[in-house]
Order: sequence, then structure tokens, then C-alpha cells
Amino acid sequence: MPPSSSSGSADSPATAILLISCPDQSGIVAAVSGFIHENAGNIVHLDQHVDAAVNVFFMRLEWQLTGFRIPREVIGEHFAKALGTRFSMRWALHFSDERPRTAIFVTRETHCLYDLLSRHESGELDMDIPLIVSNRDELRPAAERFGIPFHCFPITKETKEAQEERELEILAAHRVDTVVLARYMQVLSPHFVSAFPHRIINIHHSFLPAFPGARPYHSAHQRGVKIIGGTSHYVTKDLDEGPIIEQDVIRVSHRDSVADFIRKGKDLEKVVLARAVWRHVQRRILVHENRTFVFA
Amino acid sequence: MPPSSSSGSADSPATAILLISCPDQSGIVAAVSGFIHENAGNIVHLDQHVDAAVNVFFMRLEWQLTGFRIPREVIGEHFAKALGTRFSMRWALHFSDERPRTAIFVTRETHCLYDLLSRHESGELDMDIPLIVSNRDELRPAAERFGIPFHCFPITKETKEAQEERELEILAAHRVDTVVLARYMQVLSPHFVSAFPHRIINIHHSFLPAFPGARPYHSAHQRGVKIIGGTSHYVTKDLDEGPIIEQDVIRVSHRDSVADFIRKGKDLEKVVLARAVWRHVQRRILVHENRTFVFA
Amino acid sequence: MPPSSSSGSADSPATAILLISCPDQSGIVAAVSGFIHENAGNIVHLDQHVDAAVNVFFMRLEWQLTGFRIPREVIGEHFAKALGTRFSMRWALHFSDERPRTAIFVTRETHCLYDLLSRHESGELDMDIPLIVSNRDELRPAAERFGIPFHCFPITKETKEAQEERELEILAAHRVDTVVLARYMQVLSPHFVSAFPHRIINIHHSFLPAFPGARPYHSAHQRGVKIIGGTSHYVTKDLDEGPIIEQDVIRVSHRDSVADFIRKGKDLEKVVLARAVWRHVQRRILVHENRTFVFA
Amino acid sequence: MPPSSSSGSADSPATAILLISCPDQSGIVAAVSGFIHENAGNIVHLDQHVDAAVNVFFMRLEWQLTGFRIPREVIGEHFAKALGTRFSMRWALHFSDERPRTAIFVTRETHCLYDLLSRHESGELDMDIPLIVSNRDELRPAAERFGIPFHCFPITKETKEAQEERELEILAAHRVDTVVLARYMQVLSPHFVSAFPHRIINIHHSFLPAFPGARPYHSAHQRGVKIIGGTSHYVTKDLDEGPIIEQDVIRVSHRDSVADFIRKGKDLEKVVLARAVWRHVQRRILVHENRTFVFA
Repeated sequence: MPPSSSSGSADSPATAILLISCPDQSGIVAAVSGFIHENAGNIVHLDQHVDAAVNVFFMRLEWQLTGFRIPREVIGEHFAKALGTRFSMRWALHFSDERPRTAIFVTRETHCLYDLLSRHESGELDMDIPLIVSNRDELRPAAERFGIPFHCFPITKETKEAQEERELEILAAHRVDTVVLARYMQVLSPHFVSAFPHRIINIHHSFLPAFPGARPYHSAHQRGVKIIGGTSHYVTKDLDEGPIIEQDVIRVSHRDSVADFIRKGKDLEKVVLARAVWRHVQRRILVHENRTFVFA
Repeated sequence: MPPSSSSGSADSPATAILLISCPDQSGIVAAVSGFIHENAGNIVHLDQHVDAAVNVFFMRLEWQLTGFRIPREVIGEHFAKALGTRFSMRWALHFSDERPRTAIFVTRETHCLYDLLSRHESGELDMDIPLIVSNRDELRPAAERFGIPFHCFPITKETKEAQEERELEILAAHRVDTVVLARYMQVLSPHFVSAFPHRIINIHHSFLPAFPGARPYHSAHQRGVKIIGGTSHYVTKDLDEGPIIEQDVIRVSHRDSVADFIRKGKDLEKVVLARAVWRHVQRRILVHENRTFVFA
Repeated sequence: MPPSSSSGSADSPATAILLISCPDQSGIVAAVSGFIHENAGNIVHLDQHVDAAVNVFFMRLEWQLTGFRIPREVIGEHFAKALGTRFSMRWALHFSDERPRTAIFVTRETHCLYDLLSRHESGELDMDIPLIVSNRDELRPAAERFGIPFHCFPITKETKEAQEERELEILAAHRVDTVVLARYMQVLSPHFVSAFPHRIINIHHSFLPAFPGARPYHSAHQRGVKIIGGTSHYVTKDLDEGPIIEQDVIRVSHRDSVADFIRKGKDLEKVVLARAVWRHVQRRILVHENRTFVFA
Repeated sequence: MPPSSSSGSADSPATAILLISCPDQSGIVAAVSGFIHENAGNIVHLDQHVDAAVNVFFMRLEWQLTGFRIPREVIGEHFAKALGTRFSMRWALHFSDERPRTAIFVTRETHCLYDLLSRHESGELDMDIPLIVSNRDELRPAAERFGIPFHCFPITKETKEAQEERELEILAAHRVDTVVLARYMQVLSPHFVSAFPHRIINIHHSFLPAFPGARPYHSAHQRGVKIIGGTSHYVTKDLDEGPIIEQDVIRVSHRDSVADFIRKGKDLEKVVLARAVWRHVQRRILVHENRTFVFA
């Protein structure tokens, strides 16, 4: 069962997506929308936001490539000349038919992995998954069930550097641009992280910044919280400190043991992670100073 | 204690707010944002949406009046000439310093009334409340505590038409443009409703369209639902069928009696109603074919 | 990968579970807990509730079989003699090591199926799944991936009666006692339903009683709701009218198309269904007059 | 408008409420329910829980006093002799017609105060409010509107000890047993706190343990969280570390400024605080090792 052809972007004509941030000033929307319109582009989505506290303008713009007068190879170049420099913009340009190539990292738990594979198979996630990576071998059968190559790189303190190097090589060989940590129980080194800036998505099993680090459900239970949470974020060099993409929560009570927290939490983890991946794949996320701007 | 001067719009320089809907076509955003920019307006909020299923374009635009080249009295006229006709727009123009004049209708329950008065006093709701109307006299002391005139119009089947006429007169005398039904237990006649199109806000104590009509908590309890809800909507001639502005829910269990449903539901009612009123006052709501578009 | 041995009940010593309802009167708890204590049973969970509106007593009691003086084969008999008749009880007795034998019915959508199979494999659901049944053949590969026999019974108006008869036969052959409709898109006949009283669990993709029947997401979108829901219930002869086991909701906005409703709703469907199945398997549900009492 | 006579406990015959914790062992429920039954008590609520991780038994029991053979003055004595010592119980006995005498402490914000006063007036909270205390004078008119004496004790570093002493005196004079901090912006000294062990209820405007201390909304905004929370807890000597009674959350986005966080958070604060007070007043809370057990 290959990804269904009912997938959104597979059916739709390709679009270009522009993510912009710049110092706010009058006339940006007029200039950008004018640029698209003058080149015969039809805007299908536009969402902008001004953070008045820091005077920064943010925007996501999506328009149909069909009929657009500038060839896709040089849109970036034209845009930079026409507007990027003038407004001191930081911007990124994506095309809806360029699917992120995503590696899923796992250790022993299956709930996030199966959830992602199930969504991928049904066409919900417009990305390719060329491989699954793990530091243990247990989930090989799970990967193989869905026909995805599984690579095991066991890691000890001594082998970590070398194994990460091998991982980076195989990711490069598969032209991977996005890494999803689906309950991967190893801390990535700063060197590894720096190879995928804001392109490694993690799920942490607590409502960050509460309960960072190991065994958050145990800590939450001991603290006697009435609600537990899950947090998906981009990985940065500071553990559990990266920009938050999505969070969700579920109610617990004194009747719930740590085992119940873990069971209930799994449902949060998989849904929160999947929403974060979906937004990333849809190019809806802009990161600015450790905060995400998630466009509608 | 008059409304606090810390209120958002009281402090801020006045803005103009434009709500637009029209058949979708290429170039609308460029044209509208260009119009503002050419007249030296600084856009502070812009939110647009295209409903692809029906090919309709929706937009809310807010810009600072300071420095805008067109005097506020003729902005509408200029806009209509420049763009409204060309794009077949339906549009409405508001100014942030024109506070809605709001009458609150109540019967016997205080939770929504006190909640609105408390928010109003703290400056959260940028509106004036020239009077409170009721079909009973019980809440007169509650109104008087907050120094707001209270008018009682008892209603029977026989007197309804005449009493509503008197209500309309007093509302007109106070230049009321918005009516909030804060658990008002009388059905308004179509004649009354037609005097305030999409300007009467009701709170219904169920998750509409489930349990319309009377005694929804009793019905919900009997059906054995696991979640109850509250719904705020604009009143139309069809009871409980008007466009929904906001909904929220809370979990219940078999341990909850009808009295518990009612107690828990009150918290929903007041919060959901307050959010709806806030959005209305902020001019964030556009109604199109019995659905609301609530702009961020 | 067979169900993990880390499963709760697999590890734990077996317990007996008693679900009781009867007219309320003084002394029931003392009598029941006394009965267990006198026979050297150690209660591990007790949850009781009196519905004062109808004067009915409900209770779930779980105690360890180890050391209990009455052999498990005759516990029911003894209980009936000692207490059941005296208090006019309706009661059911289960043992934690008797795993429900569950058939999953599907049609074309995989999200609920994969979710249940994933939970089953990880040991979260203490039940056996001897077979998967469908009215179409598409999901055969999905079932086979998890090593579960797949049986296809295509159904037309003409063949329905005969095919359901064949289904009942194969369910009987596999000693199935519980049926889970994981987005099975066929209405079961009253005859079929009556074979599994309060043992067929369905997921309906709306917040019942809102939007019963077909295409609830389309109806919800047209009505302009701000929250959508999912409802899991026991199937009775009246379509979408059976006792509700669990519900949950998610927020939507005017930006969400029907396709977005469907995508977001899938997450509700699978979680709500899984929670209902878990409760059923844990013998936590008592049905009384079309309402469920879900014990903690 | 005095508290309405429709209040639950006002109408109902008085009940006794017993909160128990003790080392778990076989036979506790049978013994306790037997004790009530033998003395002709009719149990109206019973909720028990065993925390298997620490082997502790918890229970809340409520029974009607009418017809109970032991006079209310000596129930405690009898219970201690019959069961308390035998099972090494810690227990507390309350009567539903003994309303907690509650002082509300405020500073400048009205939302929690008005909310509590509104609930009190409608009869939802079965408690008396003999006085309101503040460290500032601003809310005197708000208190007076509801006819409740207002006492202002301005506090500086130098006067804190003396002013707290005066507060303790006036609380004693009014026989206050419960203190509710309704956004009271002063840290209470350990000496003050020790006078009301587990009888001071605070609302903290974050999802504890995230963002303890001052300005939590600012910290939450800077961290870029997608959900904000409110936490009500008993005050202990360790600031923001006391046992959590209730929490709730609301979703935010990058569009929300700190001012929006504050506005949305107020709705959480008042509802979460009110739920905690309600549970306290209903004698539903048992504290054990810095965690609350909130009985249904």
C-alpha cells in the first residue's frame, strides 16, 4: 500500500510557499502581494502577524505556480532583488511538490512510530520516509512490516561520536532533510544537531518547561499534578529547550498510578508529535528567537 | 469604579477596521493593502481567508487612523469607489473608538450578568452598558450594585408584543446597537430580532446542535453524555439556529447529577458568552450564510 | 511480536471483578465488603455510586483470587445465595485472566485499526483478536502485517442477511464475545446486534447526539460549529442511540475545510474508540437504562 | 440578597463526612461500612482508593445523621475506639451543616473576588465569608457592593510581621478557619501559614511546576508555550510548592501577546480557584505527603 493518491498535495497543482520575517514597517503586505499579483500568481493562503512587542513582521504566503510568470528556479532570486533586500527580510522558499525526506529515529516504544507510519501510508503526511534509525534492534520487525529500511546503530559512551558520524553519512546518502525523534532515547550531540538546524523534531513526554529531562511521568506523579502534557519541539543544543511547536494535555487524578500516566501520556505523545510533523511538512512553521510562529 | 483606563483601545490611538467578503479572485489582497498603503495607513492586523469550497474571500483589516490621508468620515465612500464595487464586496467599516452600546437582558440567574459586569468594570470589554433589561425584577439589586439602570418588562403571552415594543423604544432611546442575552429566559419575536440583525448575542446551555430548546442539561443527563457544552450564537428568527460564535465543553461522568451538570455548565456559559461578546466588540466577527468567520 | 508479557493483568495475580446494580438501601456496602472479607478476599478496587434521582445503587468491586476461600467456579453461586437475591441485585462476575475475545470490523479506513493493533501488540489491551472482518478487501494487507486472519464478507442489500449469518458463524467458531466496529461502514441488523448485547462497541464521528447518521463532518461544517467530537458507544438496535461510553472533542475554526474536519476528527476517533475498548476490556462499564457507569 | 436557600446542604438533612488514610490492609472497607451500618447510618457517598505504590488506603465516607445512633458530639470518640486505633488511621470528621468560615485575601484584581462573591451569593459555595482582607485599599468598593466587611493591612518589609499579627487576630476574632488568596500579591510568612495548615488556598497563574514565582505569563510568553495554565494549591512554607488541588489550561498561539495571555489566563484563574474552594468546602480533599486526593 503506497501513500494514497488522495493526498492533498499530490492531487493539487503545485504551489510556492514563502516564509518571511523582517523588521516591521508600513507597506510590506502591499509590496509582497503586489509582487505576486504583478507576476500573475494567485494567492491561495496568506497569513501574517506583527509582533508589536519586538516590532517584527511575520508572513506565510502560498500561491499557485500554474501561470506564474517567474520560473520556479529563479523565484528566489527575483524575490530577493525585488523585496528581500529592501525590507531586510529573512525568508525561505518551498514548493509543495518537494516532499521532505524524513528519517524516523526510535528506540523501543512503538506508539509514535506506528502512528507516523499509519498516517504516512494513508497520505496524511506529504513526506518520504527513506529509512528508520534506531540505537536498538527491537523495532526492526515493526519497520519491516511497513516496508521501510531499518538501520541499527547501537550507542555507548565510547562509540557515540563514531556512530553518529555513520548516521550522518547514511542520512546524507538518503538525502534526508528532516529527522523525527519518535521516542528516541539517546541525546544527540551538538555536532549532530547542528547538521539539521530546526529540522529535528522531538516529542518530550511532559508539558515543558515542567519536568524536563528523564522520567517526567514519575516526577509529575510525585508532584501530584492534575494534568499531564506532551510537548513537541525542534531540537537545539540545549536539551528540552528548543522552540516549542505543539503541546497538549490530558487530565489525571490521584487514582492514576505512574503506569496510568505513562499509558495516558502515550496518546498525547503520538498526537502531539504527529501534529508537529504535519505542520513542518506543510511548511507552516517559522522560528524566530526560540519561538515558533505556526501559520494557519 | 468606572471602566479602567488601562483598557486596550482607550490607551491606543484609534484604528479603522474593515470586514470584507466577496467572490474570490486574484489580486484582492494586493489591491486592498495597496489602497491602505497609498493613503499612508499603517496596517496593524490583517487576516484573510479563502473558503475554497464556495470560492469566497474573507478579510479583516485594521490600520491606524493617525496619519491616514482620508478623513474617517469619508473612508467608506472612498473605499467603495476604489475597490468595493470593483470586487463586488460586502463590507463593514468600524472605528476602534466607537464603543458598541450594549443592553444586557437577564431573567433570574446572576452568573453571566456578574461576569459581564466584572469584565466591563475592569476594562476588558470596550463597550458601554447603558441599561439592563429583564422580564422579572429579581436582579434589580445586582444591576444597581454596579450602578447600571435596570428596566423590568414582565411578559405574558398577551403582553409580549406591547412589551417588546416598549423595549425597542427604550433601546432606541439609549442608542443601543448590541443586545446580549445573559440567560434571558424569553424567546424574542422575529420582529424584535429583525431590529438587531447579527447584533443579538445569546448563550445556549448546550453544545448545539445537540439539545436545542428547553432544559438541555436534563436532556444531556438522560442521554448519558460524557461531555457537556455551551454555545454562544447570534440570534436569528430560528430558535437556537443562528450562526455560532463560540463553543466550549467540560467533562462529566455518571457521578454528576443534573444539578452538577447545571453547576458545571454555568462556568461554561459565562466564559463562552464573554468570549463571544469580546469578539463582537473587537469587530472580529463576519457572518456569511449562517456561519461566523472569527478573525484572529 | 506477540502481545508483550509486560501487560498488566498477565503479570499480576488474577482478580475477580463484580459489577452490581440494585435498588439502593442501607447496608449494601457493608454486606458486600463483609462477604469478601469473611472469605479472606483482599479488595484491590472498590468504586460505588448511588444515583439518588432513581434510587439505584451501582458498584464495581475487584479482589484478589489468591487465598480467597471460595473456588472461582462457584463464586457466583455463593454470591447469589448470600447477597444477590437478598438485595435484588443484577450482577456480573468476571476474572481478570479471562481475556475478551474480540473481532474488529473495518471497511476502508486504517487509522482506528492500526491504532488498536498497535495497542494490542504493546500489551495495553488485555484481549485476544482472533480475526478481523470486513465488507471490503482493501485492508487485508493491513491485517496480514499484524498476522491476524482477515475475513471479507461483501454485503449488498440482497446478501446482507446471509452474509451476517456467515459472520455470526465464524464469530461463534472463534468464540468471539466482543465486536469492535473500527469505522465499519455497514449498519448491523437488529438480529446481529441482539447476538452481542452491550458487547458491540462503535465509534461515531460526531459529538452525539449532534449529527447522527451519515456524513457528520459535512453537517458539522455546514452548521459552523467551533468544536467537533467523536463518540464511542455500545450498539443497540437504534442507530447511534446506544449507551455512550466515551466522547472527546477538538477545536476547529472557519479556516478548517471539511477535509480538515476529517483529518482532525481521525485523531479523536482512534483515541475515543481505544479508551472505550480499554474500559470494556477492564470490565469497568456497567449499563443501566441506556447510560453507562464507567468505574474508576 | 443573602445566600440562596436553594443551596445544596441548606436544604438537605445534615450528613457526617469522614476522611481517612491509613496503611492498607484487608478488611478496612468492611469494618468502616459495618460500623456505620450497625449504628443505623445510611451511607450517601463512599469513595476509596488504595495507592498500591505506597500501600496506603484513602477513603471519604458521607452518611446521614438522621437516625444515626451515636450523637454527633461523640462520633469521633466512638470511631477512634472502634476503628481508628486498630487500623492506625489518620482521620478527620466534618458535618455538612458546619460551614467553613472563610476570609478572602485580595490585592488589586477583581476577577477572582467577584467570581467567588457571585458564587457565594447564588448559594453554590456552602461557606460564610465574614471578611475580606487586602494589603491595598482599591477593592474596598467591590467588597462593599456585596456587603462584606473589608479590612486593609498595608504591608512593607518593616511592617510585615506586625501586620500579619493583626491579620491573625482579626481572623481569630471572626473564627475564620479557611483563607482564600484570590490574587493576593503578598507572600505569607511561614508563621502565618502555620496557623492554617492545609487551609490556605492559593491560585497561581501558571501550570505549576512550570513558571513558579513572579510574572509567569511573561515567562510563558518568552518560552513560546502553546498552552497556558492555572494552578490552585494549598499554601505551605515553600512558595508555589504546596499540594495541588486543581489545574486547568487554555490554548494560546504566537498571535497572543503577554496582554492576551493575561486576559485569557484570568478566566482560568477564577474557574480553577473556584473549583478548589468548592472541593475544600465540600470536604472532598485529603492531603497526604504533599499530594491531594480529591474524592468524587
